[in-house]
Amino acid sequence: MTRPPIRVGLDIGGTKVLAVAVDGAGGVLAGVRLASESGPDRVVRVATTAVTELALRLGVERSALGGVGVGVPGLVDAANGMLSHAVNLGVGSDGLALAERLQASTGLPVSVENDVNAAAFGAYRGMALDGRDIAYLSIGTGLAAGLVLDGRLRRGARGTAGEIGHVSIEPEGPLCGCGQRGCLEALVSGSAIARAWPGTAAALFRAASAGDVTAARVRRQVARHLAVAVRLLVLTVDVDVVVLGGGVAELGQPLREAVSGALRRQAEGSAFLASLDLSARVDVVPAGRPVAAIGAALLAPDQGRQ
Amino acid sequence: MTRPPIRVGLDIGGTKVLAVAVDGAGGVLAGVRLASESGPDRVVRVATTAVTELALRLGVERSALGGVGVGVPGLVDAANGMLSHAVNLGVGSDGLALAERLQASTGLPVSVENDVNAAAFGAYRGMALDGRDIAYLSIGTGLAAGLVLDGRLRRGARGTAGEIGHVSIEPEGPLCGCGQRGCLEALVSGSAIARAWPGTAAALFRAASAGDVTAARVRRQVARHLAVAVRLLVLTVDVDVVVLGGGVAELGQPLREAVSGALRRQAEGSAFLASLDLSARVDVVPAGRPVAAIGAALLAPDQGRQ
Repeated sequence: MTRPPIRVGLDIGGTKVLAVAVDGAGGVLAGVRLASESGPDRVVRVATTAVTELALRLGVERSALGGVGVGVPGLVDAANGMLSHAVNLGVGSDGLALAERLQASTGLPVSVENDVNAAAFGAYRGMALDGRDIAYLSIGTGLAAGLVLDGRLRRGARGTAGEIGHVSIEPEGPLCGCGQRGCLEALVSGSAIARAWPGTAAALFRAASAGDVTAARVRRQVARHLAVAVRLLVLTVDVDVVVLGGGVAELGQPLREAVSGALRRQAEGSAFLASLDLSARVDVVPAGRPVAAIGAALLAPDQGRQ
Repeated sequence: MTRPPIRVGLDIGGTKVLAVAVDGAGGVLAGVRLASESGPDRVVRVATTAVTELALRLGVERSALGGVGVGVPGLVDAANGMLSHAVNLGVGSDGLALAERLQASTGLPVSVENDVNAAAFGAYRGMALDGRDIAYLSIGTGLAAGLVLDGRLRRGARGTAGEIGHVSIEPEGPLCGCGQRGCLEALVSGSAIARAWPGTAAALFRAASAGDVTAARVRRQVARHLAVAVRLLVLTVDVDVVVLGGGVAELGQPLREAVSGALRRQAEGSAFLASLDLSARVDVVPAGRPVAAIGAALLAPDQGRQ
């Protein structure tokens, strides 16, 4: 009997672990959400529990699952499943052999991917973008992009493709955690927005729409800087679509409209920019779609095919 | 009898047309240089003459050549060999069916490519970079990059990959021809350098080394802005190597050293930048190596294989 091609994707973040089971087409069959714990042993334990819970939820043996893909924030060596420099997970420079440990605890083949890359692949496969070159722009605690070119995740020569958060666009701008000034991440990440407006991004947009002058100014800045990021991605890699994702993108269409509006305004003074049609090339992850977990699952090894 | 795989590459610029014949490995067998002429008919005529001259130089019939690849500045539709918006060649928005016209006049299969893309491929194949992901940064009249990823030229979803000359890095910077302010091209192209220093880039570097304070300042600016371009390419696409090319790069190793030095200085304040090892990832086209013509030849259709 052929094993059903059900694969598991884990999105392990600093506050929660989201696990989904997907079928071969990327459809979500079940989901589990657990609170995160910090430190290598606990990360592995919670991830194992999430996989076990998911099998229970599906009513199958854990061993009947096809494979596990993990998306994690931090520096990932996808080739050997090593994670390091994941501050939010309590994993430092010593690293964690996450694939090996989780493989031992679940008995399933495991792959590990940077969470932004996993989300990029999940957006690519789950948003009817098959066959198009895309960038996924994650606007969360930080700012980073994932690239899917020619249908494949592009990690780059040394695994740092898409690190546009550390491109400086204002030489005299605010100091960034990386040591440079005026980095995109220092200007427009979730953290940067929180510094400019006390409250959620959703509250900021509501206040701006209700006529609050300060909120309107901050919203304009957010849109303008995200427009810079979109333009940068298209000018450099010429992706067809830039998908906005991450915590701030839970704003949904209002965020997409604000960014598209900023791109339209910036193109008014430039026939060159206008010809790129940037405002039409922006999309946003649909509300509640767990693209990182889905992408991790779709990147997981498939035991049935090995 | 198998036809020898000799292909022709043409680098058609605003002042000269450079033609080379290359063997299958990219080795240059012969070269011809002619003065450019302006306007669609004259561009085709000079290109045809160059191919004929090259066959004479090789002592073979023109029909014995395997194919012709052309690199041209301007907007190229590589799929159908159409050129448009090539101001320096007197070709406007009406366009020129360059592949078709040159195919008719030479009897050989012809492909057309943007000259920066052709040079990127020529640098990739001709500088022992096979198997590495590279960007070729052309510092000529303008500033633009070509990308070779996974061994293939990456033109982008709409043919504008590598247009980093129009990424703005100084919101209050000089006005660019594209309508934006502070574009990299407005700060550090050959034209921008000519505005800051009366004379050639070589004279600028000589004066700076001889102690001229203004020249030293301009040279520092040039290096600093080119370092921004290198960093941008690595952070976004994570190419392994950035090859400096174009007219300004005829400066050779002194230019590479200046840019590497600027990258080292910028990394001093940032462990993140230091970890990227940018200063070691810069290379420069060897003096006199016609990478655009070589790349065009290597991208040419091969009659013998059709």
